[in-house]
Amino acid sequence: MTTTRPAPEEQELPFNVFAKACPSRGTLEHVTGRWGALTLGALYEGSLRFNELRRRVDGVSEKMLSQTLHALERDGLVHREAQPTNPPRVDYELTALGREVAERLLSLIHCVEGSMETVLRARERYDETRGAR
Amino acid sequence: MTTTRPAPEEQELPFNVFAKACPSRGTLEHVTGRWGALTLGALYEGSLRFNELRRRVDGVSEKMLSQTLHALERDGLVHREAQPTNPPRVDYELTALGREVAERLLSLIHCVEGSMETVLRARERYDETRGAR
Repeated sequence: MTTTRPAPEEQELPFNVFAKACPSRGTLEHVTGRWGALTLGALYEGSLRFNELRRRVDGVSEKMLSQTLHALERDGLVHREAQPTNPPRVDYELTALGREVAERLLSLIHCVEGSMETVLRARERYDETRGAR
Repeated sequence: MTTTRPAPEEQELPFNVFAKACPSRGTLEHVTGRWGALTLGALYEGSLRFNELRRRVDGVSEKMLSQTLHALERDGLVHREAQPTNPPRVDYELTALGREVAERLLSLIHCVEGSMETVLRARERYDETRGAR
């Protein structure tokens, strides 16, 4: 079996969030935005209906959750499934790619949650030093 | 050797980004905000001066980078080191906690960058379906 190896210049990652015009920067923002991150994190536990999601993502408005879900659906991270019931029922769930992204996001979220004692002590020290100037 | 085990109710993580009033939500926003994420990612490669950082984080204004660095410094993620030189030189570098956070962030960034072909195809499909309605 032969493997075609790309030429060295083609091995470079074509997408780069550090470049202003790269579309990956927009997707990173959908994923890490205030509501995007919490929505992906919440859906990692399983599919949820709109109102269930809204309760889980404490503080989100109906409008913001709706916009967030549209952006995540458009990027192929969330799948929207309308059930043919009466009244209609709409479930949201992560796609395979959405799960990959959410796993990394949750690792970051848990790291932040688990570091908050350190963060709060750092904030106190910072504010004391600034106040003393 | 005896290990003191916390009582079950103390084992719960006291910080939770899904709760509106939890301070971890603010830190998550500093870390995942548009410029926070790119600043932490850029500093993972080593310490940088302000103008070096500004070039690396393509598109950031002086004011936004300055605000971003202050928030990250206050949270104990970035260390600001003023060198006693003439002219004065200020280096920014990640703290130990900043490195832990940046590692997880870069894992997320690489996942997004590496998934952009899938994301762009999903966007095309989404826009076609929406356009056909």
